[in-house]
Amino acid sequence: MYSASQAPLIAVDWGTSSLRGARLGAAGEVLEERTFARGILSVAPGAFPAVLAEHFGDWMAQPDARCLIAGMAGSRQGWVEAPYAACPAGLAEVAAQLVWVEPARIAIVPGLCCEHDGAPDVMRGEETQVFGALQLLGVDDGLFVLPGTHSKWAQVEGGRIVRFTTAMTGEFYALLRRHSILARTLPDADAALCEAAFDAGVAQAQRSPGLLQSAFSVRTLSLFERMPVDERPSYLSGLVIGEELRSQPMPAGAAVVVIGADALTQRYARALAQRGAVVRPIGAAATWAGLRRIATRIDA
Amino acid sequence: MYSASQAPLIAVDWGTSSLRGARLGAAGEVLEERTFARGILSVAPGAFPAVLAEHFGDWMAQPDARCLIAGMAGSRQGWVEAPYAACPAGLAEVAAQLVWVEPARIAIVPGLCCEHDGAPDVMRGEETQVFGALQLLGVDDGLFVLPGTHSKWAQVEGGRIVRFTTAMTGEFYALLRRHSILARTLPDADAALCEAAFDAGVAQAQRSPGLLQSAFSVRTLSLFERMPVDERPSYLSGLVIGEELRSQPMPAGAAVVVIGADALTQRYARALAQRGAVVRPIGAAATWAGLRRIATRIDA
Repeated sequence: MYSASQAPLIAVDWGTSSLRGARLGAAGEVLEERTFARGILSVAPGAFPAVLAEHFGDWMAQPDARCLIAGMAGSRQGWVEAPYAACPAGLAEVAAQLVWVEPARIAIVPGLCCEHDGAPDVMRGEETQVFGALQLLGVDDGLFVLPGTHSKWAQVEGGRIVRFTTAMTGEFYALLRRHSILARTLPDADAALCEAAFDAGVAQAQRSPGLLQSAFSVRTLSLFERMPVDERPSYLSGLVIGEELRSQPMPAGAAVVVIGADALTQRYARALAQRGAVVRPIGAAATWAGLRRIATRIDA
Repeated sequence: MYSASQAPLIAVDWGTSSLRGARLGAAGEVLEERTFARGILSVAPGAFPAVLAEHFGDWMAQPDARCLIAGMAGSRQGWVEAPYAACPAGLAEVAAQLVWVEPARIAIVPGLCCEHDGAPDVMRGEETQVFGALQLLGVDDGLFVLPGTHSKWAQVEGGRIVRFTTAMTGEFYALLRRHSILARTLPDADAALCEAAFDAGVAQAQRSPGLLQSAFSVRTLSLFERMPVDERPSYLSGLVIGEELRSQPMPAGAAVVVIGADALTQRYARALAQRGAVVRPIGAAATWAGLRRIATRIDA
């Protein structure tokens, strides 16, 4: 009998700006990884099968090879729209809603949707990372944050994502950094993170009523020459990340799993530590572990 | 004896993007007004005297005429930097710190600074509008909001501005409207305000933990086709103005004076009414009344 857990799995994370893939071994180990600047925005409609074959065709040539794709490839602008699975959703719900673009060979993982504060919310790709992180940590519950252009905060209970929220933190940072009046007081290029300035920004966010107000302090601290120019981007980064944390219900001593690339998870770990949270960082391997877990459910 | 209250006063509001002036009569009445697209950003360094003479030279030719200038003309990028007066500050403090660019003839009104939440804050021009509004309303105390690119909230006690805060509301709206991912789901041009969508945005801001989160609802409501495209700019406007109000301490039934141009004060009045505040709107005449009051203190 065929067993999904023994078939070669090509795990693909196809996002807005990049295309990453991993060839996994029989036990789920990563045999090889590839990354390309071929996010969905760079792919013409109808060209998704060809782009996948171009970059991973040799891997797919293995007998019984299967490919699972998470991320924005399942969005309206992607390969095919994979309808969102409604929260609460775990592996079973997501596996049941896979969209097969090539029968038994290539499937797209659906994103999740939920409703909170009277409005809908969505994620695509982060659900897979959370499922992977659960396995890597050996837990079934927890609070997970996936920092980024649009950060996601997911609450997991019994292995299922019960609710989540999006914070446009990375995008607000970029808007303020490049397009606002604050840009005039900032250097063209970001220097290395100044930890003291970043911490000051996080602290300022906690004291302030909100980002509309606290952001103006970048201007006034510059005006009164109370902050060196090279420290200001770090301060602004602390302000927006601090704002994200400020507006997140978080009991003192709460454990938070931060999933993502090192540079960003380190900033979040710093900011969360200032809030008294206990932080567990998880790297990009979470995506491969998550896709592997979903694959094991296909024939289950 | 010379009396300032009888000398002809040329009242000038010289902001970032526009130059406005009024010729006031002996009793402070507005005899004539002029507006030009000659904000300080359009004026070369050193050219301020010539630009003023070009647009108001005929008025200044009156015997004993005096000119008082409020706004960004007193900033570092303006005619001459007029150091901020520290809060609490009233007419006396501001009149004492006038910067005379032409002795006994042309003076620049200083802005105000204060410190709150561990950071400095500044205003230039709004202090003059508040002083004028106090006279127009016949009061010495109150909570004042001056909506705009950078909204100011000023608390007045005994005729003096004791503290104020800045909210970058108009600028955040413009950034989100034009430069964020939300712009893709918005029409190119704003239609007339849709009051229901604006109200929904204000209400959503109250329910949400913060703008980083609530702004994403523009995207998700679009994604699920739960809001017509023409209503979305009004909804976004409600979100950012609602966020400004959410983060403003305001007791139920609080009286708030809203100073500014009609289109914007009407939006704020709507949003404030939803918060249960009692609103008194004041128009642009506040600037002329404020400059008149400052002028009366010059020789006092």
